[in-house]
Amino acid sequence: MTDKRTIPYHAQFKRAVAAVRDEGRYRVFQDIRRKRGAFPTATWYPDAQTEREITVWCSNDYLGMGQNACVVDAVKQAVDSAGTGSGGTRNISGTTHYHVMLERELAQLHGKDGALVMTSGYVANEATLGVMSKILPGLIIFSDEMNHASMISGIQRAQKAGVCEKRIFKHNDLTDLEAKLKAAPKDAPKLIAFESVYSMDADIAPIEQICDLADKYGALTYIDEVHAVGMYGPHGGGICEERDLMHRVDIIQGTLAKAYGMIGGYIAADIDIIDAVRSLASGFIFTTSIPPSTAAGALRSVKVLKMSPHMREQHQERANALKSRFRAHGLPFIDGDTHIVPLMVGDPVKCKAISDDLIHRFGIYAQPINFPTVPRGTERLRFTPSPFHTDAMMDALLDAVNTIWAEQGLARKQVA
Amino acid sequence: MTDKRTIPYHAQFKRAVAAVRDEGRYRVFQDIRRKRGAFPTATWYPDAQTEREITVWCSNDYLGMGQNACVVDAVKQAVDSAGTGSGGTRNISGTTHYHVMLERELAQLHGKDGALVMTSGYVANEATLGVMSKILPGLIIFSDEMNHASMISGIQRAQKAGVCEKRIFKHNDLTDLEAKLKAAPKDAPKLIAFESVYSMDADIAPIEQICDLADKYGALTYIDEVHAVGMYGPHGGGICEERDLMHRVDIIQGTLAKAYGMIGGYIAADIDIIDAVRSLASGFIFTTSIPPSTAAGALRSVKVLKMSPHMREQHQERANALKSRFRAHGLPFIDGDTHIVPLMVGDPVKCKAISDDLIHRFGIYAQPINFPTVPRGTERLRFTPSPFHTDAMMDALLDAVNTIWAEQGLARKQVA
Ligand SMILES: Cc1ncc(COP(=O)(O)O)c(C=O)c1O
Ligand SMILES: Cc1ncc(COP(=O)(O)O)c(C=O)c1O
Repeated sequence: MTDKRTIPYHAQFKRAVAAVRDEGRYRVFQDIRRKRGAFPTATWYPDAQTEREITVWCSNDYLGMGQNACVVDAVKQAVDSAGTGSGGTRNISGTTHYHVMLERELAQLHGKDGALVMTSGYVANEATLGVMSKILPGLIIFSDEMNHASMISGIQRAQKAGVCEKRIFKHNDLTDLEAKLKAAPKDAPKLIAFESVYSMDADIAPIEQICDLADKYGALTYIDEVHAVGMYGPHGGGICEERDLMHRVDIIQGTLAKAYGMIGGYIAADIDIIDAVRSLASGFIFTTSIPPSTAAGALRSVKVLKMSPHMREQHQERANALKSRFRAHGLPFIDGDTHIVPLMVGDPVKCKAISDDLIHRFGIYAQPINFPTVPRGTERLRFTPSPFHTDAMMDALLDAVNTIWAEQGLARKQVA
Repeated sequence: MTDKRTIPYHAQFKRAVAAVRDEGRYRVFQDIRRKRGAFPTATWYPDAQTEREITVWCSNDYLGMGQNACVVDAVKQAVDSAGTGSGGTRNISGTTHYHVMLERELAQLHGKDGALVMTSGYVANEATLGVMSKILPGLIIFSDEMNHASMISGIQRAQKAGVCEKRIFKHNDLTDLEAKLKAAPKDAPKLIAFESVYSMDADIAPIEQICDLADKYGALTYIDEVHAVGMYGPHGGGICEERDLMHRVDIIQGTLAKAYGMIGGYIAADIDIIDAVRSLASGFIFTTSIPPSTAAGALRSVKVLKMSPHMREQHQERANALKSRFRAHGLPFIDGDTHIVPLMVGDPVKCKAISDDLIHRFGIYAQPINFPTVPRGTERLRFTPSPFHTDAMMDALLDAVNTIWAEQGLARKQVA
């Protein structure tokens, strides 16, 4: 046995973690095991000796497609037929027939003539936005202040890769966006980057009006539909499909990891945009492609959800059922138009304590959402009811939350 | 049907692609389908009407683990038991028992007390290096000039995220590295980032001497073992294990997508380093975790290869068999110490033409490796013989290459 090396700057790594701890936002990952066929129940391993059954209330497998029999079969069939990994980057033996078919399907879903699958939704945002300044030197990116970390990271990459400026506009604020567009040099290339469903605040962007401004000021439009694809629109094409706006947004980005129950991300756009990103984006080029079976499972999931408006209806019904209960009890949740139900706590330590109470005492799993996922002071529990969350589960959740709220004397809203 | 929108700056996207085309480095992805149980043969779809059987000579599924029965079973069992996607980021319901067990195994493999799995080897490099300047303000990163795009991207991220400088040292050049370490301010935190096996040049870094310099100048050491894990060392722990140097490198990075035949990447390190990266790295935090079945397959693959020194021996034997053949015919390959056999062409257009010839006329698939994967003027075909590449396949390859070399009057080396 060789001696352990003394790590340079060891104390600084410890200190970085201690700082996170001091702010009450040190994250303890709950170790769980999902049970296919029993979603949203799962086994929880609080320690090496213990197993407990819990109800998961914070999964982004929004429609339970991760346990859908068709999807599971598609994955297993592809593993049987093609093996596990793809064995290469997209360019070096890692483009399989499954990838090609999936991209064709995604392009069609969004009414575009091309799509490009990447290893995650994060990478799709980062790689695509990151390469835009190479193609459009002097680009100004107008970014909603609530944009996801992956878009922010992509914009930073664009600023490192070429001449590129960033203007942050107030969340969903058309006046502020227009003021910033107007103030920018007329001849500078422009891109507006925003989301459709904002997953932490459960609200939706004024997409049409943003597109109107884009037309007026000659800007490209880039939308993240990560929390909408599969769940909105007649075929699951997202909010843009629902509102008949797909043709007005130049680049639509989505994930295969949430409503589609797999992993991976993508963009859909005009073929020349796709080809440029495909040819130039480092995060797309220099990484092993998703396994054939992942592509096969995602393809099946997209196809299934295309034909399943009833699942989208059930999903909304369940979300409304939970919101009605929260409303009736004056619980301080954000009462939005989406399937996401954020219950506000406003303090990282309290938020974690409530989450711990919920899982330890009631077998209910809702992870505390603290900084940096949400701004400091807006800490919350985020509930994501799926078609598989029953009335009984909702009643149990309400009992638990009401008990904790009463015990801790937490604020309630006026009940209407 | 709504009208198609006129895309702003459309011409610039076209122009960006045209520039790539003009340089002869426009990439056409070959559409293939791997056949489990028949690796390295696969079906190739040159167009929608045609299917042809080919031998894949450029896969990074180096040991054919992507079709290993144990690995395939582990994936299918996990899909049956836990479903497909994980449904969440690591912090929000996406940590499953499979992830926990995989990280334990990887830590042990590298003799470290912690490991952190990410969505890819690319992301592991980018996220880890990218966060270092937040933890160590004023950090100077010493980076080998041949480092992979993902490390370069991580260093750029570090420079955007905090005060951080980069010093590029000549490839594997200890004198240059020492000169640069010496020239840097004594009290500045330092990190040396390098690879073990350089996958395009097939050479290996002088790890021990780099570690000596790190000790002398108080630098952290960061190694990318992407092209070595599973393939070198008594248990597949990589070149560091083979040379008994694991304890001298602070952060060991690897992939699950090459020798392990799956997808995903990781780092292994001291637990405080792991905890700091876990708590602060955007590319780790804000993305859906790898599916339970991916973690299960990777875990099985790591365990199988830990006990399979004979596969590593076979792998080296096959690589040597190919190199002997190339040597005997005076073909201009890089005659290194690794399993990778790069055949030099030195021109992007010729390189692509030879590759096209190989697949169309001979059913042999070796993707041209052009800029930006390798420097301009060093274009090559890169062959990766696996334990499943037979003598007959090698003979067929040699016949094909010799035919093309003769037809095109390409240079040969003096045969010894
Ligand atoms: C708005 C948004 N965009 C992108 C992502 C990243 O997607 P993925 O999990 O596929 O990496 C997420 C969450 O993970 C997200 O919330
Ligand atoms: C040296 C090196 N590091 C990292 C990576 C990225 O690993 P992954 O394919 O798992 O993203 C690659 C190739 O893909 C590589 O060659």
